[in-house]
Amino acid sequence: MFYIIDILGTISFAISGVLIAMDKKMDVFGILIIAFVTAAGGGTLRDLLLGNTPVGWMKDITFVYLIIASTIVAIIFKSKLGYLRTSLFLFDTIGIGLYTLIGIEKGVNAGMHPLICIALGTITASFGGVIRDILCNEIPIIFRKEIYATACILGGFTYFLLSELPIPGNIVFLFSGAIVIITRLLAVKFKIALPSLYPAEK
Amino acid sequence: MFYIIDILGTISFAISGVLIAMDKKMDVFGILIIAFVTAAGGGTLRDLLLGNTPVGWMKDITFVYLIIASTIVAIIFKSKLGYLRTSLFLFDTIGIGLYTLIGIEKGVNAGMHPLICIALGTITASFGGVIRDILCNEIPIIFRKEIYATACILGGFTYFLLSELPIPGNIVFLFSGAIVIITRLLAVKFKIALPSLYPAEK
Amino acid sequence: MFYIIDILGTISFAISGVLIAMDKKMDVFGILIIAFVTAAGGGTLRDLLLGNTPVGWMKDITFVYLIIASTIVAIIFKSKLGYLRTSLFLFDTIGIGLYTLIGIEKGVNAGMHPLICIALGTITASFGGVIRDILCNEIPIIFRKEIYATACILGGFTYFLLSELPIPGNIVFLFSGAIVIITRLLAVKFKIALPSLYPAEK
Repeated sequence: MFYIIDILGTISFAISGVLIAMDKKMDVFGILIIAFVTAAGGGTLRDLLLGNTPVGWMKDITFVYLIIASTIVAIIFKSKLGYLRTSLFLFDTIGIGLYTLIGIEKGVNAGMHPLICIALGTITASFGGVIRDILCNEIPIIFRKEIYATACILGGFTYFLLSELPIPGNIVFLFSGAIVIITRLLAVKFKIALPSLYPAEK
Repeated sequence: MFYIIDILGTISFAISGVLIAMDKKMDVFGILIIAFVTAAGGGTLRDLLLGNTPVGWMKDITFVYLIIASTIVAIIFKSKLGYLRTSLFLFDTIGIGLYTLIGIEKGVNAGMHPLICIALGTITASFGGVIRDILCNEIPIIFRKEIYATACILGGFTYFLLSELPIPGNIVFLFSGAIVIITRLLAVKFKIALPSLYPAEK
Repeated sequence: MFYIIDILGTISFAISGVLIAMDKKMDVFGILIIAFVTAAGGGTLRDLLLGNTPVGWMKDITFVYLIIASTIVAIIFKSKLGYLRTSLFLFDTIGIGLYTLIGIEKGVNAGMHPLICIALGTITASFGGVIRDILCNEIPIIFRKEIYATACILGGFTYFLLSELPIPGNIVFLFSGAIVIITRLLAVKFKIALPSLYPAEK
């Protein structure tokens, strides 16, 4: 179940990278790197900070294949990705929920303070996009319109609040993930209510 | 004593990050990340290069709280930070002296060559600002106006020169730190004498 | 033999960094950092991802001296570097061949999957330039004009194809390196045939 979410999340992260790289008129190699960084960069930074080396994608080649395949498919069917927009957004959002929790649990397993674990969850879910934006020579979008990160942080606090209560681990996991997902869905709605902020900024 | 300098240095580094992030019209999350990176980024890069993981701020939560608190206070009292300008500059400069020496001593403890130790000291003191500038989509300021880095390097050479002489470690530490601080104060003065260079460049 | 190639490659990488940093009107410190990052950045990223810390240049001070010396010489004789253009391009290209194979062999020694090893070879040979471009506030050039990376990847596949055959290791090494070098030489020629792409893009 979580594995399927991880796969769908990776695909949607990689495709979002492809679209941004193509906007920047990169070549195939550049597009692949941006797709890879978007999908795997957050987990890589987390692993480096924790000292979990070699980093994750070096040990599970499946995700490398998955990102390469997603990139090729996205380049070929670029003009038709518009039809999948809603699905991709949903996979992406569910992926953020999962990655936040994966990052938190890696921190917990390494004996880190809850605040550090929440930071690691947020890094896992959102810093792939930060590295992508740096490579594309943009100020990271999550530093300017706060959809991802706040959702991850709220989900992280929920995780540690619920962990204090006599609730089974699975329920804590699902409920915290749901908080991330719902917060982001609401935030996207909310952004629609405040469209004046970013056009002027950009 | 050193702990107080470390705290004051961290606060002034974080506040300088807040001011730059607000210039870039970042949201609260972006401002916090930039403050964090400015204060902790140099030490984090040093720890990664040395393999000292999990990196420093993951193990001492005090500084995480300190950076978050400094960020919140700086955002709220932004308009009044101008009054503290001289104090902040002094804390910042003293902080650079301390961080250079912390970096050097981490290198010495890891058995590194003096030149590598000086590089580690310079990285500790100045690469938080480099990462901050990259995240803000600017060419790092210390690559264009050489105030920080030269001071750190001179202080580092002083450290190793004095270490050859029969002088107690504390005196070596204080004197090398003073070289960093004095060099930077003079460099800032000196920059005032050469104001034509940067306006034209920027 | 390989050591000489490594030295010539490091010098030509460092000089290319100096030239780009001077275009950006950096000061001496900035130029040195850009030269260093161009020459040592790819191997540093590879070492970090693999967990080989302290990273390579911290353990072999020779290359630190070499980069510093190349930087100073390049700054002083900048106006005369044009005469060395062809030599520098050749050293650079041979260096890429060598660094690709060094990266691959570090991956093999760490027990990595061939695809990961090829990625590590490509990172070793080309990500110094990526970090250099990020520090110079440019979209990395190898993401837009694909000369380096494709050559490294082709050389990497050649390495693993030949490793399956009963061929001595040295021959595999030399032939794969030659593929990287020849591919890049042809790619540069090929780019001359397609000059319209980049002026319009930039």
